[in-house]
Amino acid sequence: MAENNTRLRFLEAAGELFRRQGYSGTGLKQITTYAKAPWGSMYHFFPEGKEQLGAEAILHAGAFYSASLTSAFENGGDPVAIIAELFREEARLLEASAFQDSFHIAWTAVDVASTTDRVRAACSTVFKTWADLIAGPCAAAGLSPSQAEATAAFVLSSLEGAIIVSRTHKSVEPLRVAGEMVEIALKQVFAGVGQDAMRSSSGELAP
Amino acid sequence: MAENNTRLRFLEAAGELFRRQGYSGTGLKQITTYAKAPWGSMYHFFPEGKEQLGAEAILHAGAFYSASLTSAFENGGDPVAIIAELFREEARLLEASAFQDSFHIAWTAVDVASTTDRVRAACSTVFKTWADLIAGPCAAAGLSPSQAEATAAFVLSSLEGAIIVSRTHKSVEPLRVAGEMVEIALKQVFAGVGQDAMRSSSGELAP
Repeated sequence: MAENNTRLRFLEAAGELFRRQGYSGTGLKQITTYAKAPWGSMYHFFPEGKEQLGAEAILHAGAFYSASLTSAFENGGDPVAIIAELFREEARLLEASAFQDSFHIAWTAVDVASTTDRVRAACSTVFKTWADLIAGPCAAAGLSPSQAEATAAFVLSSLEGAIIVSRTHKSVEPLRVAGEMVEIALKQVFAGVGQDAMRSSSGELAP
Repeated sequence: MAENNTRLRFLEAAGELFRRQGYSGTGLKQITTYAKAPWGSMYHFFPEGKEQLGAEAILHAGAFYSASLTSAFENGGDPVAIIAELFREEARLLEASAFQDSFHIAWTAVDVASTTDRVRAACSTVFKTWADLIAGPCAAAGLSPSQAEATAAFVLSSLEGAIIVSRTHKSVEPLRVAGEMVEIALKQVFAGVGQDAMRSSSGELAP
């Protein structure tokens, strides 16, 4: 149990430091100090070093937002309204942390995209999991599987991008606007339910 | 002239290395080597060190994409079609560079958002310039100033986010889908031209 707690402290310390200062800007010594763990335990839990710890920390952080998405959709309701609320929730989180923190992994995804394939693959897994959690309720509300998948990919891209632009400007205005515009697009897509055949044949949303 | 060339080589080397491996993962020695410049010239041109070089490199890289945006819109035409093409162009660039490169600065914006305020401010300036270059043609095509600003902010968030998700998955599918969905949203916004008063009073798109 104590061993599990130390391991968890490493994952959470790494996740928080990656979000605040990037993967490449964070060293193993700093993570160990932040986790209040003895240096020797780092290689005990993560014998393959920083890439192993990095990949596991991303999956751990991703699971937090997955739980948040699952909870947002679990009581049913209009998926478009729930998705619009995801943008507002993110704006509240950013403001509450003075633009320091969010549950998102875009920081690390960007930082490692070309340099550390193991951590990039973990980010890719997390993005796919989040997209599936958004696509599921959209399909249940009537979209075709390919429309639901496209909708989820678009929501995720817009949300991650709006977080980045908001954080860069230190203003939640980009998140607010993105949420409203995504809602406009999604209402159109949902209004097309029943016209799937037409849409698919025109290739408009088919992947 | 030779002096100007060396300075330019520093800015371009820094921009390229930031895009590939992040701001915090890039050292001054590496930039100097990559720029094929003598070490002493680094502090000659950038006496305030990495933050000065970083901020100037971001503004320099931003100007490239500004030129590209100006050129995309300069012959007039439907801004929605031109914006949709921006997403396709980005997908081509990413594929051509095996997902290594793009003109965008999201990498650096993310990396420095909480750590290096001078570089963050440069990223904020670049995002604002790009947004203005998109908002101008949208206003010229009939949107109210607040709608044009909201549209531009949304296009930028979705584009940056889709580049990040595409790069993480090593697939241009997120960019393709985001471009199509942004087009759907923008057609709605433009279809509302003439209903500005109604839209503004409902606060739907007012900033």
